[in-house]
Amino acid sequence: MKLGIIFGGVSYEHEISIVSAIAMKDVINTQIQYIFLDENREFYHIPTDTIKSKLFSSKDYKKCQKIELHKDGFYTQGSFLSKPKKIEVDTYLNMMHGADGEDGVISSLLEFNNLSYIGPRKEACSVSFNKFLTKGYSLSVGVKTIDYKYFTRDDKVNIDNFPVIIKPVRLGSSIGVSVVKSNEELEYALDVAFEFDDAIIVEPFINGIKEYNLAGCKINNEFEFSIIEEPQKAEFLDFDKKYLDFARTSTALKADISKELEEKIKKSFKDIYNTLFDGALIRCDFFVKDNEVYLNEINPVPGSMANYLFSNFDEIIKKLSKSLPKTRKILINYDYVNKIQASKGK
Amino acid sequence: MKLGIIFGGVSYEHEISIVSAIAMKDVINTQIQYIFLDENREFYHIPTDTIKSKLFSSKDYKKCQKIELHKDGFYTQGSFLSKPKKIEVDTYLNMMHGADGEDGVISSLLEFNNLSYIGPRKEACSVSFNKFLTKGYSLSVGVKTIDYKYFTRDDKVNIDNFPVIIKPVRLGSSIGVSVVKSNEELEYALDVAFEFDDAIIVEPFINGIKEYNLAGCKINNEFEFSIIEEPQKAEFLDFDKKYLDFARTSTALKADISKELEEKIKKSFKDIYNTLFDGALIRCDFFVKDNEVYLNEINPVPGSMANYLFSNFDEIIKKLSKSLPKTRKILINYDYVNKIQASKGK
Repeated sequence: MKLGIIFGGVSYEHEISIVSAIAMKDVINTQIQYIFLDENREFYHIPTDTIKSKLFSSKDYKKCQKIELHKDGFYTQGSFLSKPKKIEVDTYLNMMHGADGEDGVISSLLEFNNLSYIGPRKEACSVSFNKFLTKGYSLSVGVKTIDYKYFTRDDKVNIDNFPVIIKPVRLGSSIGVSVVKSNEELEYALDVAFEFDDAIIVEPFINGIKEYNLAGCKINNEFEFSIIEEPQKAEFLDFDKKYLDFARTSTALKADISKELEEKIKKSFKDIYNTLFDGALIRCDFFVKDNEVYLNEINPVPGSMANYLFSNFDEIIKKLSKSLPKTRKILINYDYVNKIQASKGK
Repeated sequence: MKLGIIFGGVSYEHEISIVSAIAMKDVINTQIQYIFLDENREFYHIPTDTIKSKLFSSKDYKKCQKIELHKDGFYTQGSFLSKPKKIEVDTYLNMMHGADGEDGVISSLLEFNNLSYIGPRKEACSVSFNKFLTKGYSLSVGVKTIDYKYFTRDDKVNIDNFPVIIKPVRLGSSIGVSVVKSNEELEYALDVAFEFDDAIIVEPFINGIKEYNLAGCKINNEFEFSIIEEPQKAEFLDFDKKYLDFARTSTALKADISKELEEKIKKSFKDIYNTLFDGALIRCDFFVKDNEVYLNEINPVPGSMANYLFSNFDEIIKKLSKSLPKTRKILINYDYVNKIQASKGK
């Protein structure tokens, strides 16, 4: 299989996408074509044997071949002397965290051009990228979430009980997130959050709440699960700490939980995954309180694809690439226009 | 203002998009550039003075100029002898009903290429195009909807009380929708619905329920509303009847309702519109039962832009084009990659 890894993108998580994508070299045993989307929304083909993070921070990637997305793939730019050449890829893997990758943009571009890809489809992006929509979706599929309040920029924000955690609705990797312990700290935290988004959610901050992460996907209508991990955490994971996580390739430790709780967590994962996440390998982060499972967030393009949670990651990616949702063929005819014309006597 | 109307698209509503777009010539007094997306996902520039529905049913549009979407606009294809020429447009108007237009694809393409457009953004598309997500979203913003059950293709569908209305989750214009009066009629209706989608919702069919339509948009943070119309309806509007609606340009009649109900409907519209629909002129269809307002559906690209509900449609489109959401500028730096490199001593 020739796997095209799409990474970069215009987002606050541009850098972690780079680190995350590079980590794939060590965990997927197949021919990889690296396709980088830079800050100017130009695509570049990065040679797999020389890829490293410094290539991007130094801007040396600009010496690599610029490519363009067309009807059935990425192509080099042609010139008077040479024809455009196609980058041969069987399946693409969307590895752009944050905007462009998790917000539906790259899904739309790939679908518009009929390319087959591993990653969240458009609706799956909307309900996971926007934390407010995650809450509504989660409720619809019967999975509990932590209580919350939703505010837009012009709303008056009233908080009755502290501590709370304030999150911009649309960012991942803890960017713009603050734990607020009193009214005095509120204004600054709101400023920070609204710098990144026009809407926020506020949740009670529950110290010491148990957190469990589970990754998985649906292959031929059956779920394939990773182990359940209890992530190591400080008060909460900030960008720096999470960042290091994106380069992870060593195996994680299975959480020490009861079989019953494990099943509850897997049931919640399945309910969330539903049919909306078909085609994607996602990681769901859950809270557990009094033996009840609450969805914290859905990572539709998890850091380093959560490879460290699987013992058979390479195999899963290969099987998933053969079990991707098909686009329904829509036939366009002009029956109704013809009918109108007939009725007009034209 | 030079308005670029994008229409067509690969969807079951391709034809009604054509009729709807052509209707704009009579109601918007500005220079229009018609941009047609055909069944092969090729764009064509259609001359405004010769546009008519027959051009498409006859496939004569293929004689028009083929154009391509690039970084800052649509361009004619260059050749050895001529440079690509840009189609000059100030603002685009998304008039693709159904897939490609209402599902987030065109929004993604336009945003990726930095083009300013009137129409629903990606998340707004997801929560209105998928009727199951509409239910969850509506609940989140505090607007009631009719009770429903959600089924995917492999679920066993049990219906206790008839009549019900069965709807594929992702189609508009009543395609694939059936009113089912008994268990005997169920199987056929399910076959029809699942022919169009992998998931359906089932609602009780309430005969004679009052229906009211309201269109509007937010301009400079203030809502601009149309009149509220009580649409004429048969048992329910089927594709043929709704289709004719898409060409409407004559003014509708204001529904005869109390001031109180009018305010309730407007309040529900505002709650739905929220900030998610910023940039779009939408039509919300409500049911009213026992003086309670229920959302039926959100049309994020309404037929003929619901122009017939406004007395000042031309003015609204022009004002809206100057009040579109701005894309947040994201600066890409390489602080974290540099930090990692420093810690590695590289």
